[in-house]
Amino acid sequence: MKLVQCVPNFSEGRRPDVIDQIVAGVQSAGVTLLDVNPDADHNRVVVTFVGEPDQVLEAAFRGIKLASQLINMEEHTGEHPRLGATDVIPFVPLTGATMADCIALAETLGEKIARELDIPVYLYESAAKVPERRNLADVRRGEYEALKLEIGEPARKPDFGPARMHPTAGAVVVGARPALVAFNVNLDSDNVKAAKAIAKAVRQSSGGLPAVKALGLMIEANHQAQISMNMVDFNMTGLLTVYRAIEVEAHKLGVGIANSEIVGLVPVKALLDVVMSELKLTDFSLEQVLELKLAARNEG
Amino acid sequence: MKLVQCVPNFSEGRRPDVIDQIVAGVQSAGVTLLDVNPDADHNRVVVTFVGEPDQVLEAAFRGIKLASQLINMEEHTGEHPRLGATDVIPFVPLTGATMADCIALAETLGEKIARELDIPVYLYESAAKVPERRNLADVRRGEYEALKLEIGEPARKPDFGPARMHPTAGAVVVGARPALVAFNVNLDSDNVKAAKAIAKAVRQSSGGLPAVKALGLMIEANHQAQISMNMVDFNMTGLLTVYRAIEVEAHKLGVGIANSEIVGLVPVKALLDVVMSELKLTDFSLEQVLELKLAARNEG
Repeated sequence: MKLVQCVPNFSEGRRPDVIDQIVAGVQSAGVTLLDVNPDADHNRVVVTFVGEPDQVLEAAFRGIKLASQLINMEEHTGEHPRLGATDVIPFVPLTGATMADCIALAETLGEKIARELDIPVYLYESAAKVPERRNLADVRRGEYEALKLEIGEPARKPDFGPARMHPTAGAVVVGARPALVAFNVNLDSDNVKAAKAIAKAVRQSSGGLPAVKALGLMIEANHQAQISMNMVDFNMTGLLTVYRAIEVEAHKLGVGIANSEIVGLVPVKALLDVVMSELKLTDFSLEQVLELKLAARNEG
Repeated sequence: MKLVQCVPNFSEGRRPDVIDQIVAGVQSAGVTLLDVNPDADHNRVVVTFVGEPDQVLEAAFRGIKLASQLINMEEHTGEHPRLGATDVIPFVPLTGATMADCIALAETLGEKIARELDIPVYLYESAAKVPERRNLADVRRGEYEALKLEIGEPARKPDFGPARMHPTAGAVVVGARPALVAFNVNLDSDNVKAAKAIAKAVRQSSGGLPAVKALGLMIEANHQAQISMNMVDFNMTGLLTVYRAIEVEAHKLGVGIANSEIVGLVPVKALLDVVMSELKLTDFSLEQVLELKLAARNEG
């Protein structure tokens, strides 16, 4: 079984009937819907679904096609940056799937969007064809309004489709990225200076661990300073590695760890990596996890 | 969702048509069959299935009823000790289920077997009504042939049903027990004496850790001494606790741990306990494991 997650962001957060139609289109491809999170201020909805690669591809395309018919970027306003009716659509490898699978999905979908819907497509993150398009913020620079004027320039030429915006749907950014784990570590103190120093020591942007984003902040409710993290690629740096690094940095600063928390969903592999490392566990397969074996059986 | 595993042992390991009929009866109740493991020498088959409590109860009853019709204990021979056509049938709590749920299932099933099939029933392990019946070997003392003569004695009075054997099906032993995890730790040496000493130090029977059975032995294939364990209640003693204890004992004896392995299936909770302990993880729910949430959705 190969499982892929897809998290399209559509530029509609105010009209429930439009959101419902898009979500129904996605679901009609047989994927499992995990979450629909609309935001009226952003005028945007984030949809999360999971399925086999073929299903996920078809579900994504159905959603994009409906969004191109139901959303008019000429009339769209909202706080969140965006380029199109379907703004950004990443594929994320889960159980049994690889990043290569997700890059292939992004390319297949991009080509199909251009060919069947006549919408320009950009590839980003792991699916990017050039380094300048890895970062979504760079691809989305100036938003819909600026890209409309600049799309004819060589630097902004789409990866698929025409070098002009779709009249209502704008452009779509398709990509592949690892699953993200939101992991917070709480100190046994209200020393927010220590939390900020630890965050700085462990995050990639200031020379720490690869694929770790971290901020030090105060959780007023329980008077604890916290290192709040996004683990953007747990295969690169896992939960145990960052936890141990925080332990060391905390020790240097005379504080300790009270506890940790995972916010939202976590792929089972991110947890198993901790067990395998701690117990020097070898030759272990996800199929040995009783509940996962059971889930696979029930699908068959 | 409450998931219960059931592992009936039926006294038929030689006639595939009989095994097939019993298994088909079990499956007809809508449970998920995980394994069917017949043994001709033992003349016995171990069937493993999983489902919601009501389904599992019905599946168990259908299997027992068929076994009582298809197996004649008066003609049964085999190496493995046994009391009846359905010899022993434990319920095991998995995700969302408790031992109390499984004890209740054992009692309900026991009463139903006695009432509808007129077969005497004994309760064992966590479902036992008296300490002398916790141990299966004590309940099964003398096997079918001895119990047939002794069942009228007060000490051998069944927990449910008549104080005489069923003419063909004998008696049934119903119970509840924790999930068992088979966990082996390999030393970085062929020092089997050390492995035996470590096994002795960690196993309950020689004063070690509760709910741990351990043997020291030699794995000839890779020239490694191994501590081979059955963790009979990982809520009592978990994988990390026994691993740490082995680390300490190995250190005393001047050997180290090469790796470890889990044989067969493991409930996800036994793995999560390691993660929660290592990362001081709090407020974590199994529903946060993406693949498990997905499995729950697909069932709904």
